[in-house]
Order: sequence, then C-alpha cells, then structure tokens
Amino acid sequence: MDGPLHERIAADLRRRISTGELPVGTPVPSESQLTAQWNASRGPVRQALTALRAEGMIGGGRGKPPVVRRQALSQPFETFLSFSRWVRDLGRTPGQRTLEIARRPATAELADELDLDEGAPVVQVLRLRLIDETPTMLERTTFVEPVGRLLFDHDCDSGSIYAYLAARGVDLSTARHLMDAVAADATDSELLGVDVGAPLLRERRRACGADGGPVEYSDDRYRPDLVSFAVENSQRAQPALARNWRSAS
Amino acid sequence: MDGPLHERIAADLRRRISTGELPVGTPVPSESQLTAQWNASRGPVRQALTALRAEGMIGGGRGKPPVVRRQALSQPFETFLSFSRWVRDLGRTPGQRTLEIARRPATAELADELDLDEGAPVVQVLRLRLIDETPTMLERTTFVEPVGRLLFDHDCDSGSIYAYLAARGVDLSTARHLMDAVAADATDSELLGVDVGAPLLRERRRACGADGGPVEYSDDRYRPDLVSFAVENSQRAQPALARNWRSAS
Repeated sequence: MDGPLHERIAADLRRRISTGELPVGTPVPSESQLTAQWNASRGPVRQALTALRAEGMIGGGRGKPPVVRRQALSQPFETFLSFSRWVRDLGRTPGQRTLEIARRPATAELADELDLDEGAPVVQVLRLRLIDETPTMLERTTFVEPVGRLLFDHDCDSGSIYAYLAARGVDLSTARHLMDAVAADATDSELLGVDVGAPLLRERRRACGADGGPVEYSDDRYRPDLVSFAVENSQRAQPALARNWRSAS
Repeated sequence: MDGPLHERIAADLRRRISTGELPVGTPVPSESQLTAQWNASRGPVRQALTALRAEGMIGGGRGKPPVVRRQALSQPFETFLSFSRWVRDLGRTPGQRTLEIARRPATAELADELDLDEGAPVVQVLRLRLIDETPTMLERTTFVEPVGRLLFDHDCDSGSIYAYLAARGVDLSTARHLMDAVAADATDSELLGVDVGAPLLRERRRACGADGGPVEYSDDRYRPDLVSFAVENSQRAQPALARNWRSAS
C-alpha cells in the first residue's frame, strides 16, 4: 500500500483487528512497539492511533493503554449476510450441523414474507452454526421452492449455502434484518447449550434476488454473550453495519 | 408535491404509513379506494403499490389484500437517537418517568466508554420511557459531567433530554449502537412489567459530539414484543436503519 506512513500504519492495524489477529478486548501494540515495527517516529504512530480511536475501533487513551473495541467499521453486504464468510473474515473457523431439511407447505406468515400463496411448497433448513466448534447461532431458514430444491443436491454441512447458491446463479441483492430478543425454546436450549427461557438475540431476515422477489426468510437466534450487532450513524455520513463476535470466556 | 401521479400517490402512502395513520399490520387502501381518492386510472395506482412493495413497506399481493409491513425506509440520525422524537413521528405520545438522577464516580467500564479516568464524576439518569402510557423501554444513561450537570436544572419528566441539551449547545453528531439480548433484572421487571429473566432487546449506545468526544453512554432495554430494530442493506445502496414499534395487543 502506498500513501503517507500514518495511513499505512492505520490500515495495517485495521487489517490486524478485522482478521482477529488483534481480538476485541486485547491491548493495541504500544507506541514504542509500533515505532520499532515501522522504524517510524512517534508522530505518524500517534496519528494512526488517533484515527482508529475516532473510528471507535480502539478505546482507552488518557494514559490508559488502548484496547481493541470492535472489529470493523462496516461490513459489506455479503459478509453481513453469510455466516461462513463473516467467520472466515474474523480469522476463525465456521462450522455447521444440519439437523433437518424439509419440503413443506408455507404457513400464512411465511407465505406473506415470501409473497407466496399459503400452502405453496417451500424448503426449510434447520442448521446449527458454530465458531471454532462453539455453538453460536441456530438458523431456521425457509427458501422459495425453486431455490430450496437445489439444496437437496447439496451437503449443507459442507459450508456456505449462499456460496453454493451463488454458484448456481441465485443472486441475493437486498436484505431486511429485524433485530429483537426472544426466549430460548427447547430446541434452542438443546442445540445452543443455554437454559430454556434464556434471552437470545434474534435476527429475522428476508433476502430478495436481483429482480426484487423474495428468495429466503430466516429466523436466526444468536447467543448474546457471543454475538451482537453494531450500527453506526451520524448526522452526515451513511450508516454502517457490523456483526460483532467475542470469544467465549 | 409535483412529479408523475404514481410518485405522488406513493409519497402520500409513505407519509400516511410513517405518521402511523396507517399502522403496521393494517390493510393498505384498495386499488378502488385509491383510484377514487386520486381520480386516477388503475395504472398509476398499481405503479405506486408496486414501488411500496419493492421497498418492503407493504406486503401481500397475489390476490391477497396488501398490508402495511413497516413504517419507514430509514430514519434520520435524530429520530434514531431520540425516543421522544421517534414516538412523535409515529403519531403516538411519548412519556417518561425519571426514577433517579445522580452524580457518581465512573466505573472502569464507563470510564473506558466515555474516555474518562476511572472515578471521574459522571451523571446517571434512570428513566422509564412510555408510548401511549405503556412502559416500553428502560434507559440507564450516563453523561460526562459538564453535560450531565445541565440536567440538574431540568425536569427530565418534561420531555426529550436531547432537545433540552441541543438548546444548550450540546450537539450530538455520531453514535454507535450495539444490539443484543439480555435477561430482565429486578428493576427491569418491576418497571417494564415483565418477569425477571424475560428476554429484553438491549441497545448500548455511545454518542459523541461534533468534536468526536464521547458525551453519553446508555444501556436501553426494550420490551421485544413492542420494539425491534430494522436494518436494510444491499449490494448497491447504503444501509438504512429504523426503530420499529408495534402496538401491544
């Protein structure tokens, strides 16, 4: 990368934070370490740290050693949509355990979300998602039938469903995400390893293709001690979104 | 408003939805009603309804009567920040009950969020927020002392703290919101009227002034049956944010 030294230092720190090399909560390398690493004077190092502090990626200051506060300023559409892609970008290992894939008639609620007639066939997948083998999220995803039928020829335990569908020409281009909280039911409890009734962070997502037609509707439930959603907004700039993860323990 | 008829019809429907005149879950006026109201042919009316469907503001179709699905495509910074402003924009009545306002030394966690030294004085407000007299959210807000001290001269039950502070030159310009889920504690339970341990939607917010310095840090807990947060994103456009409300019962 070209550009002024302070920008190169800042970019390298952002990369190390976003890949998980510097996890959230850990100390940022000290000014002395950075000046040595870059063979730089304190000026550019301080400028880089000030930039990251302004972005909210690091906290501390006023004599306290700065620590990593969050992983990303904003995540692109694909990363925000795909669990596998997001986890790999963190430098972690995504995992999945498919518990069920079924063709069923759409309920009234699902028909409304997917612009189908009630009773039209849909394909439903119940899948546990893991980060470094820790159960982190349980997804209940419903696909419109022409897309969902592709999954019967796919090993859903092999990785990203989105990557598989994209390779077959299913292009998701917009999504709406509704965030709220829900009490864990018996299935959530068993698979996520939490008590029945424990609070879970729920994301209900409706994703549409390039033609605007709905392709999938999902109810994803996250362990809130591991995952949160971050939104940044301001008077002047466009909002930024990120899904955050922190390691258990 | 000028412009093609179908755009004027769509804009009017957006206005009626965003003000709560057409609440979420209610039927959209029929094609016949709209053609009569606008003295229009079916073409522009259908174009307007198609536009709102593509934006996700209305659902249904395929012979089913369309219903209002959500209130806003995106909310401006101020509306997303201020509970009072948001509720008034819904056409509802915001309320507040201040339970405590206190000057205290900052804990280590708050000092880090507000870029203060641990033990520096901060002002904390515990306030119950209501929509049409229904307890909806409990906020635990911590202000840096030079801002918080202004609140000792203010009746926090009289309305928006943000409007009061803005009138005194406190200009909030950026905010970071972390969304997750949390179990209701005894205070949440008593004030929000939910069981201890019930899932609540939590928003932790850090808002900064025009100079980038932190002004407040808040832990806001919402009844998830009443409020959710909506995020829209796509491959092409900037993300959009909204706080959604639906009436109890």
